[in-house]
Amino acid sequence: MAGRNAAYALHGYFRSSTSFRTRIALNLKDVGYDQMTYNLRSGEQRSEGYLQRNVQGFVPTLQLPDGSHLGQSLAIIEWLDETHPEPPLLPAEPVGRARVRALSYAVALDIHPLNNLRVLKRLRSQFEADQEAIGEWFRHWVTLEFAGLEKRLAGEPETGRFCHGDRITMADICLVAQSINNRRFDVDETPYPTIRRIVETCLEKEAFERALPANQPDAE
Amino acid sequence: MAGRNAAYALHGYFRSSTSFRTRIALNLKDVGYDQMTYNLRSGEQRSEGYLQRNVQGFVPTLQLPDGSHLGQSLAIIEWLDETHPEPPLLPAEPVGRARVRALSYAVALDIHPLNNLRVLKRLRSQFEADQEAIGEWFRHWVTLEFAGLEKRLAGEPETGRFCHGDRITMADICLVAQSINNRRFDVDETPYPTIRRIVETCLEKEAFERALPANQPDAE
Repeated sequence: MAGRNAAYALHGYFRSSTSFRTRIALNLKDVGYDQMTYNLRSGEQRSEGYLQRNVQGFVPTLQLPDGSHLGQSLAIIEWLDETHPEPPLLPAEPVGRARVRALSYAVALDIHPLNNLRVLKRLRSQFEADQEAIGEWFRHWVTLEFAGLEKRLAGEPETGRFCHGDRITMADICLVAQSINNRRFDVDETPYPTIRRIVETCLEKEAFERALPANQPDAE
Repeated sequence: MAGRNAAYALHGYFRSSTSFRTRIALNLKDVGYDQMTYNLRSGEQRSEGYLQRNVQGFVPTLQLPDGSHLGQSLAIIEWLDETHPEPPLLPAEPVGRARVRALSYAVALDIHPLNNLRVLKRLRSQFEADQEAIGEWFRHWVTLEFAGLEKRLAGEPETGRFCHGDRITMADICLVAQSINNRRFDVDETPYPTIRRIVETCLEKEAFERALPANQPDAE
């Protein structure tokens, strides 16, 4: 455990994209947190103790100062934005908010759920997928959705230094976490120059850099 | 095309869960809409005309009176809730909102993305999955997550007539759409009495009944 403020505890795993998203958001909001880590590869998230915090056995869970628990990274990020308004992670106007959420979900619903550890394991157990087939599956969904995202981000006037204007939003958080995940499966991101530019701009920020998987206490 | 109000147009498909969610929300908010339908089985959502409305080639898209387009069902529902506050589809307090969003995402992120048409097609093309294997895959993810959802909904004091208290929220919308989808793959829902009770209570409401796939103009 390490952190600046014992009030919040983040239950997570260094390599989990959803834990990574949550760390970025907490850092951007300057909310201090202790970290409790669970090795997903050895199934620690399915221990009885953790299931009492999160019935799905998923990381992350954010433990609040009153002892209650919030699950699901996007729900945590929305909660943070409602309770710690500065800096905002969603724009003020509804159509802008809908755009940021849609960009976020294009990653968080349309790519990540298909490519996380439990799904890749299931492909191995049900379809005897080997490492090559797993990589092909992973890259199929990423390249399909990144092509569409690149087209939107490159073509729409709302895009700025970041996905939506010149302020960091939830969409940037989702995009960066996915892009870092892509490295593990050798995704070629050269066809997505706008995405790459935005990701690189984000990674210059301390809040993103400090949240990187490699910089966590449980990094291997 | 049919509807009470030409101002909004919903581009969707009768059998799409995400279109179904959006129809329920529009009905609950009493927002009239025309329907433009796209047969996903024959790939109409990938036509050049539709891709200009939705770069991902996904349904649904909500066309606003000013001609702009919103994608992603959950982003549309959040937008509706921000712009048409009554009746609210999220509770007022942040922790309640986080619970409703987490319950929604347990369906919309952790089940649906794994079981939609494009993924089942991919299992066929990449792993030569037959109909039996497809059914097994579908039921695997549903039963895994429904078990956790049932435990939460049955055990948490926040649950009421609906997923969160006695008012319909986004979580109920996601749950009903999934439950109707489950019927196509013979999911046995008897182990989930709380989920069944909530779904049945929702389906008594005209807003849900009118949104059912079977009641759409393009139903087969």
